[in-house]
Amino acid sequence: MNRARDTKARLLEAGRKLFAERGFAGASVRALTELARANLGAITYHFGSKEALYGAVLAFMFAELRARIAAARARPGSAAERLGAIIQALFLFFAEFPEAPRLIIHRLAAGALPPAAAVAQFRPAVDAIVTTVREGQARGELRTVEPLLAAFTLISQTVWFAVARHMIATVSGLPFDRPEMAAVVERHITDVVSRALAPTGATR
Amino acid sequence: MNRARDTKARLLEAGRKLFAERGFAGASVRALTELARANLGAITYHFGSKEALYGAVLAFMFAELRARIAAARARPGSAAERLGAIIQALFLFFAEFPEAPRLIIHRLAAGALPPAAAVAQFRPAVDAIVTTVREGQARGELRTVEPLLAAFTLISQTVWFAVARHMIATVSGLPFDRPEMAAVVERHITDVVSRALAPTGATR
Repeated sequence: MNRARDTKARLLEAGRKLFAERGFAGASVRALTELARANLGAITYHFGSKEALYGAVLAFMFAELRARIAAARARPGSAAERLGAIIQALFLFFAEFPEAPRLIIHRLAAGALPPAAAVAQFRPAVDAIVTTVREGQARGELRTVEPLLAAFTLISQTVWFAVARHMIATVSGLPFDRPEMAAVVERHITDVVSRALAPTGATR
Repeated sequence: MNRARDTKARLLEAGRKLFAERGFAGASVRALTELARANLGAITYHFGSKEALYGAVLAFMFAELRARIAAARARPGSAAERLGAIIQALFLFFAEFPEAPRLIIHRLAAGALPPAAAVAQFRPAVDAIVTTVREGQARGELRTVEPLLAAFTLISQTVWFAVARHMIATVSGLPFDRPEMAAVVERHITDVVSRALAPTGATR
């Protein structure tokens, strides 16, 4: 029983590593099971298919992200402060799971959508940001802007930085791939979101 | 002579299509030359290597992007209006070359940087945006913020929308993958950039 749980956990870990490095098609069942020290049939036994293992890996990551966004959202403070806490949670998540953006963009690069199991975890994460914006608008703390577009402004900058920081460092000649620069970019995004959503006519 | 030029052009076109669909590793020399109706040695003859063909495809796209950004930047108007014209140019570029984002993110997903030839075209495109911000700051039209971070806010939202619009449509349930929604997102990003860079204390 414990051994089966261990094998399943090791397969998830191997999937997280190899799907990030090689993409879904590039990570073979043989390479995945070898890395997990499992037999060739273990993926079928524990998950049903390689696609289902990939879905489980993404669902695990998005569930983690979702829990962190929910915790940030639950903090006391103004809507702008809670959105700042959400941005901080996203930066921490990408620092702890540096393979996360590659797991997603491999799939987007292939012209396909993430598996439904992953989308099911991702949607509530986006909804939590949308709801935070809506609450701030209801209290007059944020201006009227489509909440989904406000969430897009927060997510797109944060995710693109996680995806492209090495390229940005190369193109700009500045060390955007160093941890201290992540803090600078995090403050910048928080500032942009706050200014973009400040009530019209507000003096800052 | 004309025939050689035609073959080279067909190889570039085949590269744009197949590298976008399958990534660098996934697009074989055989598939590329077959699609271009050229012989197996044509890539080596015209470009030197598959890596050099990939670099030439990216350099062509970034050179096109760079020219469009330069044209938008050269328009009369305030710095905010010129940044709006640049965002519009980026949206038009991604509408005309829908394969462009996939060409880039395949490489990022693989954990590698774009070839040097492509970076050489991309850097002046970023510089043109940075210079537009700097000029607006010198004229007091834009607040003091690191110009490279301002450029990041403009580029990251626009590129992430081009990369992830189908996923955003699936997660949100709204038709973000339809052309009319691109116009809505374009206006939103222009508005965000304008508010994020408005001089502090400005009444809007």
